[in-house]
Amino acid sequence: MLDYLSLDKAQLRQKQRLLQKSYDDFKAKGLKLDMSRGKPGADQTDLSGGMFDILNKDSDFRCKSGVDCRNYGLLEGIPEMREMFAQMLGVSAENVFVGGNSSLNMMFDAISCMMSQGIGGCEPWNRQGAIKFLCPVPGYDRHFGITEFFGIEMINVPMTDLGPDMNIVEELAASDDKIKGIWCVPKYSNPQGITYSDETVRRFAALKPAAKDFRIMWDNAYAVHDLNDTPDHLLNLMDECRKNGSEDLPILFCSTSKITFPGSGVAAMAASESNMAVFKRKYQYQTIGYDKLNQLKHVRYFGDYQGLLDHMQLHRAILEPKFQTVLSILDEELLGRGVAAWTKPNGGYFVSVNVLSGCASKVVALCKEAGVALTNAGATYPYGKDPNDSNIRLAPTYPPVCELETAMQLFCICVKLAAVEKLLEKM
Amino acid sequence: MLDYLSLDKAQLRQKQRLLQKSYDDFKAKGLKLDMSRGKPGADQTDLSGGMFDILNKDSDFRCKSGVDCRNYGLLEGIPEMREMFAQMLGVSAENVFVGGNSSLNMMFDAISCMMSQGIGGCEPWNRQGAIKFLCPVPGYDRHFGITEFFGIEMINVPMTDLGPDMNIVEELAASDDKIKGIWCVPKYSNPQGITYSDETVRRFAALKPAAKDFRIMWDNAYAVHDLNDTPDHLLNLMDECRKNGSEDLPILFCSTSKITFPGSGVAAMAASESNMAVFKRKYQYQTIGYDKLNQLKHVRYFGDYQGLLDHMQLHRAILEPKFQTVLSILDEELLGRGVAAWTKPNGGYFVSVNVLSGCASKVVALCKEAGVALTNAGATYPYGKDPNDSNIRLAPTYPPVCELETAMQLFCICVKLAAVEKLLEKM
Repeated sequence: MLDYLSLDKAQLRQKQRLLQKSYDDFKAKGLKLDMSRGKPGADQTDLSGGMFDILNKDSDFRCKSGVDCRNYGLLEGIPEMREMFAQMLGVSAENVFVGGNSSLNMMFDAISCMMSQGIGGCEPWNRQGAIKFLCPVPGYDRHFGITEFFGIEMINVPMTDLGPDMNIVEELAASDDKIKGIWCVPKYSNPQGITYSDETVRRFAALKPAAKDFRIMWDNAYAVHDLNDTPDHLLNLMDECRKNGSEDLPILFCSTSKITFPGSGVAAMAASESNMAVFKRKYQYQTIGYDKLNQLKHVRYFGDYQGLLDHMQLHRAILEPKFQTVLSILDEELLGRGVAAWTKPNGGYFVSVNVLSGCASKVVALCKEAGVALTNAGATYPYGKDPNDSNIRLAPTYPPVCELETAMQLFCICVKLAAVEKLLEKM
Repeated sequence: MLDYLSLDKAQLRQKQRLLQKSYDDFKAKGLKLDMSRGKPGADQTDLSGGMFDILNKDSDFRCKSGVDCRNYGLLEGIPEMREMFAQMLGVSAENVFVGGNSSLNMMFDAISCMMSQGIGGCEPWNRQGAIKFLCPVPGYDRHFGITEFFGIEMINVPMTDLGPDMNIVEELAASDDKIKGIWCVPKYSNPQGITYSDETVRRFAALKPAAKDFRIMWDNAYAVHDLNDTPDHLLNLMDECRKNGSEDLPILFCSTSKITFPGSGVAAMAASESNMAVFKRKYQYQTIGYDKLNQLKHVRYFGDYQGLLDHMQLHRAILEPKFQTVLSILDEELLGRGVAAWTKPNGGYFVSVNVLSGCASKVVALCKEAGVALTNAGATYPYGKDPNDSNIRLAPTYPPVCELETAMQLFCICVKLAAVEKLLEKM
């Protein structure tokens, strides 16, 4: 075990030469591998192939409430789909609104609605001057994109192993009524795979924001996406809120994008009655209703919520070896070297790696040059700016294991090479 | 042929007694019929039953560009679907953006985008103070709903047999830079079934609005929805705009909601490159992409655009007799009575009836009391307010012919009864 930080200049130079040689060898292979996005592999979408046989022209197209799913009607979704999502989100079916194919779209639309219509009986956000949002970092680039699109200023809040640093969240939310919300991926967070601790969830439920229209955007994207025999458990936020009389704080989101088909799944949101009244009023103008045939296909395919959970075991069987590959190569190549630290998630879609300060963009550039696409350095921070240039998100799901091995070998070489160069610079 | 307007008081009283008796007989039947919404019947959704057999687990899920439609990718839609919609909208495929299941949703989102981001390089609409929209009346209630939702003031523009009164449109648009657009259903308009004349389309293309960010919302919902052997032809607006250098004026919309499945079809929009740049930037934040499996199913089911047109003939075979039923009963019962005028559309989903001023709500209420649901009186006007209380939208598509006959008999009785009462009031 060799800690690079303890090497002298000559030793570092020697390391650099060897690493450069290994890097050049990889580059000569002309690789073309992609670890950039949290995208299921074709073997995963194959798992839902049976969904294509669920409906045919002679099917009974009526959902539980008797409505023909081929026609207009049921703005909030079919009852059985609302019930299934209610179980996933830990709320009652009446609080669930089933949307189209994308929970991201529902989040965008929810923010858009609060901008133009307001929430909690307050003025629309777009009439309240400059407003702000808390962004636990590193986090999900597309969340930050939405807030940036609407001109909402973003404030970084550091993540801990237990979730966002709640001392900072509580202090900021309480001190500034221009702060209108926070983005959360509470289970198997993107990118770290951290699940918020019970205490973190309780402190969210007990939050006392200065703004009456502060909202917690609770994106439970990986609610059922366990990867091993020791899955995390997320405390039910809505239950905790009920104890505190703070049911209006959270807005919950989830989807089947990483359960059935990315882009052809079903998304949902849930919120308190008074929050949902605002969003439902908006939806009444926005659409006549979402795709109920796709909803019907989904519930009939799974049968019930247990069926959906069973289906997730099939995903796990594919993904667990991929995550093990990534983690074992990281262990083998980087453990104890002092140049990187990473998370070991029990679920979700990512591994988060922190390399030496000032090295992340260099690592990503080196990988790219050698034919391995990673998520852009900085992408996990608001405005694409990682103040330490240190965080890299690895997405192990899409490439097959053999490609992952190659990509990870290269990645580790790049991490070490960038570290050695940075250490030499400082000497 | 008896013109009610020429009757004296005693004659009207007698008419009233007879009509009341007929009405009471209908009421005693305990009907439960619905002519309220432009909803295809189950026989029409049956026509697309073959779509359920297009894809199965062994299908090739790659679209033309090689992308696996089960996974993420292709924000603008699959190439073959963009091409099919390009033909429907009369534009190039590069100008088409394929969305989710609802063109209404795309219109809502387009207005929302222009509110918060602006268009044509201008300030966002929501930072320009009170803005206005032109609304040809009678028109589509859900268009008016969107503008009302965003707090945009609506100005009624009368429809003529050739489309909106273009003298008024031109004068208003040129005189007030707070007027930001107009809603149009240019072919088989909702509710009259009027198709804009070539001159109307040319005058739209030559429009010189005071506002640089004035946009024509061109909702071509019934582009291929002909009902008989003498279909209307709509001039290509985008072609005319090109001649005038006004390609940035229109934003075009359409969908397959009334071709395949309402709620499970595919929608699209098209616009000039510079307009689309604004909307595409928004979509990049709003979603990763829409349902490509549904797109793939649609294009493979139809084969090509001609296949889609052939499919429309099957709809026509179902709908033509329904419209004939409605029109022949109107002719039989109301022609020459002086109490109603109506349109005889060659396509679309509606028949528009104008009853005596001040009678529309009464007619709708009478029908409702006797078990026949019609679109609310006033719904075809902004804010639900028909200044003459005269227009009623009939939607003949959903009920079977036998039910339509009953509903129309009742409707005509109600029109006459309300007219007689109104005439008596004035005496």
